[in-house]
Amino acid sequence: MALTFWYEFSSTYSYLSALRIEDAAKAAHVPVVWQPFLLGPIFKASGYGGSPNLMSKEKASYMWTDAARRADQRGHPFQRPLPFPQNSVLAARAAIALPPAKRPRFSKAIFAEVFANQRDIADPAVIVQAAATADLDAEAVLANGRSSEARAALFAAVEKAQERAIFGAPTFITSDHALFWGDDRLEDALAWEASGSQPDAR
Amino acid sequence: MALTFWYEFSSTYSYLSALRIEDAAKAAHVPVVWQPFLLGPIFKASGYGGSPNLMSKEKASYMWTDAARRADQRGHPFQRPLPFPQNSVLAARAAIALPPAKRPRFSKAIFAEVFANQRDIADPAVIVQAAATADLDAEAVLANGRSSEARAALFAAVEKAQERAIFGAPTFITSDHALFWGDDRLEDALAWEASGSQPDAR
Repeated sequence: MALTFWYEFSSTYSYLSALRIEDAAKAAHVPVVWQPFLLGPIFKASGYGGSPNLMSKEKASYMWTDAARRADQRGHPFQRPLPFPQNSVLAARAAIALPPAKRPRFSKAIFAEVFANQRDIADPAVIVQAAATADLDAEAVLANGRSSEARAALFAAVEKAQERAIFGAPTFITSDHALFWGDDRLEDALAWEASGSQPDAR
Repeated sequence: MALTFWYEFSSTYSYLSALRIEDAAKAAHVPVVWQPFLLGPIFKASGYGGSPNLMSKEKASYMWTDAARRADQRGHPFQRPLPFPQNSVLAARAAIALPPAKRPRFSKAIFAEVFANQRDIADPAVIVQAAATADLDAEAVLANGRSSEARAALFAAVEKAQERAIFGAPTFITSDHALFWGDDRLEDALAWEASGSQPDAR
């Protein structure tokens, strides 16, 4: 029994969830599986082809305002990433190659590089830096991220996401396959997983 | 000083907000101005051209699940509209032609026709029914909704929405022009309007 947290390193609202899911899940007594994946192939397969948050300049501009407000409310740092969206393939491969228990710490370090430090995670040096921040063997993290096993594992994760009808990130999937999309639904997803069904009136 | 509630009768999350904004605003001591508009022209002007909720079949399917869960949590009825999206032009003209004080009741009756009764609000008979439900002079509501004044007022509302950088519905705009998008941001918008700034940590 666990809630699966599907996240993408270039996703603004995935970042917001990554910073709070451990505390929220602990309070709800729900184990969480951190599952990195890529949105790019999913957006490409959709009717639109790109991020819906970048659909218009008005919507894109709002996303930055909204995310900054949310981060500020929670006392979390937030800077608009440069560049955006980022090429998150190498970071996602490095994360998926890690044992599950090491993913949260490394993933939070990667998210911090993107959304707090304005670094470009397409740069292998930034992956190494994040791994070091997470107290991991940085060169091994990079080497494993570049392996064919990591490439295959990430490809399989994207296929599984598509089978699960995931269309955005973050997405939370309960052990009975209920899907919740977006940082705003983290509490609902945890309550569902904790109780096995729809939470009561709020 | 008031919060402006921009809503579209064919918008699922506008319906969810319409059912709760009066109670929430009363609790926050914030007056609300009900401002009907149309999303169609705004989506047409955007890069994508349609509703982002219908961007892929996975996202569209999720929207129905999510909206039904939310309505259920709140004890509100919810049925998937037939047809969807609806042609909401006549209903929006009828709403905008009403004095502001009469808009909430009529608008909630229209929303109920769409999201509880599965009626098609493109049908003038449904507009008449909703006006009667709202204890209004139903024939006058329909006649005023068909007037050139109503047409011009709705056109002006859409132009104003575009000037305000509105890209979806519901949208809440504070008296100092802060924009909040989506039913999930109603509380933040009310708190901002009540205090004149960013709410404290939550």
